[in-house]
Amino acid sequence: MQIKSIENNQGVELFALIQDAQVRTARNGSQYLSLTFSDPTGTIGANLWDATADQIADFLPGRVVYLTGQGSSYQDKLQLTLQTLRLATAEEPSDPSLYVARVAISEEELKSGLRPFFAAIQTPVYRTIVSSLLGTAGERFFTYPAAKQNHHALVGGLAWHTLSILRLAQSVSQLYAGINTDLLYAGILLHDCGKLVELSGPVATQYTTAGNLLGHISIVDGEIVQACLANQLDPNDDQVVLLRHLILAHHGRLEYGSPVKPQLLEAQILHQLDDLDASIVEVQQALAEVQPGEFSPRIFALDNRKFYQPTQPE
Amino acid sequence: MQIKSIENNQGVELFALIQDAQVRTARNGSQYLSLTFSDPTGTIGANLWDATADQIADFLPGRVVYLTGQGSSYQDKLQLTLQTLRLATAEEPSDPSLYVARVAISEEELKSGLRPFFAAIQTPVYRTIVSSLLGTAGERFFTYPAAKQNHHALVGGLAWHTLSILRLAQSVSQLYAGINTDLLYAGILLHDCGKLVELSGPVATQYTTAGNLLGHISIVDGEIVQACLANQLDPNDDQVVLLRHLILAHHGRLEYGSPVKPQLLEAQILHQLDDLDASIVEVQQALAEVQPGEFSPRIFALDNRKFYQPTQPE
Amino acid sequence: MQIKSIENNQGVELFALIQDAQVRTARNGSQYLSLTFSDPTGTIGANLWDATADQIADFLPGRVVYLTGQGSSYQDKLQLTLQTLRLATAEEPSDPSLYVARVAISEEELKSGLRPFFAAIQTPVYRTIVSSLLGTAGERFFTYPAAKQNHHALVGGLAWHTLSILRLAQSVSQLYAGINTDLLYAGILLHDCGKLVELSGPVATQYTTAGNLLGHISIVDGEIVQACLANQLDPNDDQVVLLRHLILAHHGRLEYGSPVKPQLLEAQILHQLDDLDASIVEVQQALAEVQPGEFSPRIFALDNRKFYQPTQPE
Amino acid sequence: MQIKSIENNQGVELFALIQDAQVRTARNGSQYLSLTFSDPTGTIGANLWDATADQIADFLPGRVVYLTGQGSSYQDKLQLTLQTLRLATAEEPSDPSLYVARVAISEEELKSGLRPFFAAIQTPVYRTIVSSLLGTAGERFFTYPAAKQNHHALVGGLAWHTLSILRLAQSVSQLYAGINTDLLYAGILLHDCGKLVELSGPVATQYTTAGNLLGHISIVDGEIVQACLANQLDPNDDQVVLLRHLILAHHGRLEYGSPVKPQLLEAQILHQLDDLDASIVEVQQALAEVQPGEFSPRIFALDNRKFYQPTQPE
Amino acid sequence: MQIKSIENNQGVELFALIQDAQVRTARNGSQYLSLTFSDPTGTIGANLWDATADQIADFLPGRVVYLTGQGSSYQDKLQLTLQTLRLATAEEPSDPSLYVARVAISEEELKSGLRPFFAAIQTPVYRTIVSSLLGTAGERFFTYPAAKQNHHALVGGLAWHTLSILRLAQSVSQLYAGINTDLLYAGILLHDCGKLVELSGPVATQYTTAGNLLGHISIVDGEIVQACLANQLDPNDDQVVLLRHLILAHHGRLEYGSPVKPQLLEAQILHQLDDLDASIVEVQQALAEVQPGEFSPRIFALDNRKFYQPTQPE
Amino acid sequence: MQIKSIENNQGVELFALIQDAQVRTARNGSQYLSLTFSDPTGTIGANLWDATADQIADFLPGRVVYLTGQGSSYQDKLQLTLQTLRLATAEEPSDPSLYVARVAISEEELKSGLRPFFAAIQTPVYRTIVSSLLGTAGERFFTYPAAKQNHHALVGGLAWHTLSILRLAQSVSQLYAGINTDLLYAGILLHDCGKLVELSGPVATQYTTAGNLLGHISIVDGEIVQACLANQLDPNDDQVVLLRHLILAHHGRLEYGSPVKPQLLEAQILHQLDDLDASIVEVQQALAEVQPGEFSPRIFALDNRKFYQPTQPE
Repeated sequence: MQIKSIENNQGVELFALIQDAQVRTARNGSQYLSLTFSDPTGTIGANLWDATADQIADFLPGRVVYLTGQGSSYQDKLQLTLQTLRLATAEEPSDPSLYVARVAISEEELKSGLRPFFAAIQTPVYRTIVSSLLGTAGERFFTYPAAKQNHHALVGGLAWHTLSILRLAQSVSQLYAGINTDLLYAGILLHDCGKLVELSGPVATQYTTAGNLLGHISIVDGEIVQACLANQLDPNDDQVVLLRHLILAHHGRLEYGSPVKPQLLEAQILHQLDDLDASIVEVQQALAEVQPGEFSPRIFALDNRKFYQPTQPE
Repeated sequence: MQIKSIENNQGVELFALIQDAQVRTARNGSQYLSLTFSDPTGTIGANLWDATADQIADFLPGRVVYLTGQGSSYQDKLQLTLQTLRLATAEEPSDPSLYVARVAISEEELKSGLRPFFAAIQTPVYRTIVSSLLGTAGERFFTYPAAKQNHHALVGGLAWHTLSILRLAQSVSQLYAGINTDLLYAGILLHDCGKLVELSGPVATQYTTAGNLLGHISIVDGEIVQACLANQLDPNDDQVVLLRHLILAHHGRLEYGSPVKPQLLEAQILHQLDDLDASIVEVQQALAEVQPGEFSPRIFALDNRKFYQPTQPE
Repeated sequence: MQIKSIENNQGVELFALIQDAQVRTARNGSQYLSLTFSDPTGTIGANLWDATADQIADFLPGRVVYLTGQGSSYQDKLQLTLQTLRLATAEEPSDPSLYVARVAISEEELKSGLRPFFAAIQTPVYRTIVSSLLGTAGERFFTYPAAKQNHHALVGGLAWHTLSILRLAQSVSQLYAGINTDLLYAGILLHDCGKLVELSGPVATQYTTAGNLLGHISIVDGEIVQACLANQLDPNDDQVVLLRHLILAHHGRLEYGSPVKPQLLEAQILHQLDDLDASIVEVQQALAEVQPGEFSPRIFALDNRKFYQPTQPE
Repeated sequence: MQIKSIENNQGVELFALIQDAQVRTARNGSQYLSLTFSDPTGTIGANLWDATADQIADFLPGRVVYLTGQGSSYQDKLQLTLQTLRLATAEEPSDPSLYVARVAISEEELKSGLRPFFAAIQTPVYRTIVSSLLGTAGERFFTYPAAKQNHHALVGGLAWHTLSILRLAQSVSQLYAGINTDLLYAGILLHDCGKLVELSGPVATQYTTAGNLLGHISIVDGEIVQACLANQLDPNDDQVVLLRHLILAHHGRLEYGSPVKPQLLEAQILHQLDDLDASIVEVQQALAEVQPGEFSPRIFALDNRKFYQPTQPE
Repeated sequence: MQIKSIENNQGVELFALIQDAQVRTARNGSQYLSLTFSDPTGTIGANLWDATADQIADFLPGRVVYLTGQGSSYQDKLQLTLQTLRLATAEEPSDPSLYVARVAISEEELKSGLRPFFAAIQTPVYRTIVSSLLGTAGERFFTYPAAKQNHHALVGGLAWHTLSILRLAQSVSQLYAGINTDLLYAGILLHDCGKLVELSGPVATQYTTAGNLLGHISIVDGEIVQACLANQLDPNDDQVVLLRHLILAHHGRLEYGSPVKPQLLEAQILHQLDDLDASIVEVQQALAEVQPGEFSPRIFALDNRKFYQPTQPE
Repeated sequence: MQIKSIENNQGVELFALIQDAQVRTARNGSQYLSLTFSDPTGTIGANLWDATADQIADFLPGRVVYLTGQGSSYQDKLQLTLQTLRLATAEEPSDPSLYVARVAISEEELKSGLRPFFAAIQTPVYRTIVSSLLGTAGERFFTYPAAKQNHHALVGGLAWHTLSILRLAQSVSQLYAGINTDLLYAGILLHDCGKLVELSGPVATQYTTAGNLLGHISIVDGEIVQACLANQLDPNDDQVVLLRHLILAHHGRLEYGSPVKPQLLEAQILHQLDDLDASIVEVQQALAEVQPGEFSPRIFALDNRKFYQPTQPE
């Protein structure tokens, strides 16, 4: 049974992830837990009344639980009235990532999609640095989201977003002369790797303290410096400086958090393709929820615009 | 002989276009013409002293002349000292477009490049409208520049810019699902057609009065309305409204002259690909003049940034 | 009986317009209608519990109903407890426009006020175009509001706003030399006519899809082109271009949705008088609700400022 | 003889105002004066070579001189070669204001135009304050320009601008209800009086130190406080606060130098009419120099726009 | 007993200040008072049901009351259920200022801290003006807050903020040469004195009408003019103009409400130290409520940023 | 003899630094060098006609020369007519830094001024990192300017600016509680160290390529990462993250090139003191060139404002 299929006044039993858990005090002075459960199909809230200290310690965000209860409607919103609640055991489907929506493309497809782009990088300096950072990233590169929310806030979002830009970059490189694809591909592969430190992970994603105080741009830049030292490269070497510039400039404008503006053809292209992929995915996701002839809700990242789902001509 | 090869103190004879001609009064009270000549290789200035009324009437911007004289240096700048100056005759190379730089791709390639995109448009409404506007444009579509200056300010620039965006759009449509290519291709084909009215032509390009007062965006929009009426279509019909929206919104932001912001997936894509092609061409042109290890002059349209031409690693 | 006079715990019977109607599901799973009723004196909410499919189909926004019930207070807000609810019959006051507030000036006064300005336009081109667009508009010109909300969001608001600007323009033309009143009056008469397409009508006003995607500025511009074709005028003729410019530039700044900025004296005047009338009416309406010595609520369209109602000196 | 009629190689004798005088050192080490002369018809430059200390002390900006010499052309610009130069005597036309362009309307017309507006102010507090400030201003009110440059930078510009706004305000007050004309007229009469301190005077106008450091808005505000004290009024009395608010808010936006934004209907109207008069006069003056079918130079105060002088339809 | 120590379901009796009192109508049609009580430790709400006309007239904001009742929880928020409520008598602690939080430094310390700065001003003009304004201010200077909310919104906030800037200014004057401390100290002492008119007082602080319409900057400027007239000084005298400039320019930018920008070294320093003290106090106050390892709520006045409370390294 | 004392028509002989050297072609086709010489007292231009290839190779920016010639005036500007020009020998005063203006405080004073601040840092992590970066910087820390131009563009400017902020920070730390001086001092000491890579050096200062492409903020950040690796510290350790944050955020706003905004009390203070020192020095330097009663030229970095040098009261 999945969250999406819960109905009012109906019995419920299912496994779910605790996405959020807040300890609160009821009017009678006792403590209760205000819980949010999620699985790939959706999200639902419930209160656990008279929560014991053990329950408060157990039911933390990120844990998987088994629950029984009943759908109930409160202020026009469906929620759960809990009957039983316990942690899932190791034999049960207790891997939190099972309960998080992921991108439509499989991890294997992501890996086989990315492989030729990495293989195409011939310049030793770029090959070494990319190899070092992706090595450190390991599997996390394929599970992290690309953002806390909005587009690509799905398991695998980081890799999917990276792959989409690489494919756009391949087309652009075929249509225009003089693009250094080694530099461009290396820059794309690394541009958002700082999110592996900036965000807490694919489940119940939060900004980390280092994420807030440094930002993902400076985090990757620091990791490139680290990779240089580990590989006897000079971080101020000409080629390294070009790659660092692609990372630093990829937000395109100072006011969007890039400490320098794009000053290389490849940096300009990376910035614009990053925006292009983000825009298309944001609009597609917004329109997926909308009937023909209707406007979507406003999309914050796109200038707060509503988008229109055209009617089908007969 | 071409303008680029003129040297100081050297005899000159060549055909050239009068790009600019200003009537001025010399200190002795007589009138003279301050002339600018151009050919595809460059530009050079000269004064025609004691100009007669006939000469003033003849030597207008846009005319082709035959001239003899000598290169001379004035304030560190090379100019011409004229010996003879006359209009080119019909037997001579008197077609002004011969003297204007054109895009690197031939008119035939532009036409054969564009043809499949037009052919791909199956929706009757879009086919009709595009056909009508391109019919009216005729050959001008293949000779007009895409701008008075900057990128694509070359003979054929409009068609080249249009074709480049179409090719980018084709790649994007293959990489992302759910894009209405009929609408997108029709929008791209027409998006800058208003420049056929906004600009005076490929030679000595100026803004026309209608161009200044209406702008190319509203000009095309009006022409689509015209095409509708000529073809018994309702300009407020759903499909027509979508196409008009693509045109109106293609500058992406109100402050760049679009009266509405993109609210269709295809409008957003058209806007971003328009920017992408313009950026790449601007940067490529700026870097073409720059040595490895040097920065280009500032590019006004790109946030006044300088771009760097990397050195070649040994 | 009118909405304004409803009191708590008091019997109610009246005719009203359904301004909004939302279908919702109650906690017990049954459907109900959340309704908003309005008449010229105000607005009040009510729920119709256990709504049948017929009721849901009948009680749509824009319909007039007869209702009985009782005033009741819910969370410090007065609402209605319905006893009976039915559609008004044709013999009853069932014209929706009876239930919408209108401007203080009668339709006849609006018409007689506008007539001399139209009569004053001697230039044939302008006379023809204005005549064509106002002919198409017909009675709607005198019933449409000038906006979805804010100033002039009243029946007749469009005509009232137009007349007010014309009167200001007449004064300005007498105080300053060299103003082309034919052009200026024509521009004023047409400047907001696009709202006849952009907005759904005087009752329960919404933006139409064409309104969202084209905007009222481009809508009128297209209609001027249509009028030209219908009257054998060239839409790029000098005089037509001037009039189109007045329409296109009347928001004054690109960021307010004008695709070009004012470049004619008359365009500048139209823009500033449009703003002046809007400001005065907005402030007057806000101050009408405020006691001497108090500040009004913030006015969004005026930079979010509060306005002060001065006390009367004794 | 007037400056406008000077021609190249022609004898010149005339009275003129020294508008600017700079002491410079020639290549031979001697000092010379670089002078600018003006009269109501224009401006012309000349050098006085080997200037003596007496000459340097005499020929100061603001002095009237009698000169003889010859028109000469230098770098396509007409200038004067001086033969004799001396200060004008008291018997000669030595009043500097004779040599400055003034507004088209006579001082007497300005006075008789303003009188009824002053007379219309019945509220004693406003009458007292206006009377006090205009009394202090005296004749300067009718000779000062309204700006160092741009619109109204003419003798009489302050009074002319004030009168124009008053006339607009009168029309507005007749078209809209509820405007406190006593407050509005008082505010208009005083709004730019701070320029009597901010600017040095009608001849060779400069910003004063107090003008730079305080600005004309705070200067008038301080003078209203002074007038209150001299007339036993409390500067924080309700009615005085309203008038001070009109002055303080008349630039409309903080970024234009108003310390508060308009929060009274009359303050909003004053602000918009001030802008309206300035815009119309700026555009009229720019178009006066332009042929039909041409665009004016860019007008800095109007968003750097060019304005178009339409051709006359036949 | 203090507000901070109230617990759920517990008896309460205490004196408190009425900070806010709103008359409302209950669902049964009777009137009740929605009250907010405060003391230096916090704030709590309560409703007085079936309020009589006498009670409504008595229990006004700013009055001190004695109350008994019980803590109760409503929607997770603690409030009071009242049993008795009466005004405090003159023998009881009925001075409202006892119930408002004040700065950590005593009034005596503020006075002894400020004294040497006033004593250090030797320039007679500045000494006279400062003396005049502080004399008028009297004790209010030591009780007023520096703002309606945010930093320094405490009893004594104005004096504390002034003293802090003076101490910073003293350090700066020792580190850099050429600073006119007489001018700088005078400017600091007066810069926020307009708040004595702009704000209603230390208790239940509101903006006054004069405060809204003039702003505290123009209010002090006017008072300096007054002080000049009372002391036979010319308000446009050079030295006075410098001091007025410091006041007028102290917000640093036009868009923050200064009618002129800083153009004196001392004006620039005053502006930056004003900001510096405000920032430090805002951040300190926000971090005081936050655990190590947590971020504060967003601080509106600091660009809406959150601040981080670092963890203590072991 | 020094540049400042050169007069027209007077013999000149002196040592000077070549600040700029441009190869140009004269009208007769021969090459010449357009040279700019500087010493601590000023700057003067000269042309070396008919320059040989050897001369072009020798007379490069940054070289010291001995020259003889004569002062001459060209277009009201003093320049040099060269008689002889040769490179200075090793025995002569050939150290380029002798010819560049330096800060008023000696290198020894800078060092002894900075020492106690470094000594005050007790936290091992900060002590290690600061020690590492200052060790790498070595003497360059005391010779580099703080900017290419503007304030502190003097030999020693970097150290002087750093010391000034440290002294301000010391005062602030004494006046306010809870400031982590170890963190703050470490941040100040390192905040501009990236300029050692961003700028070419104290003589003929230019931006380096790495400086343009990375910016001094990311350069130091990378060096801190390097220092961590060299000292077995984790660059994402909590304490390191705080220090990196101080560096990254010290421009205060994204649009000024900081990739993150200040989120620590110490980061906010560093940012504001950095601004304060820069402002004071800029204004002091501008006013040093200005007579009492005059305004300085506009200062670009201070919002393009002019500053006023007050007259001395008698």
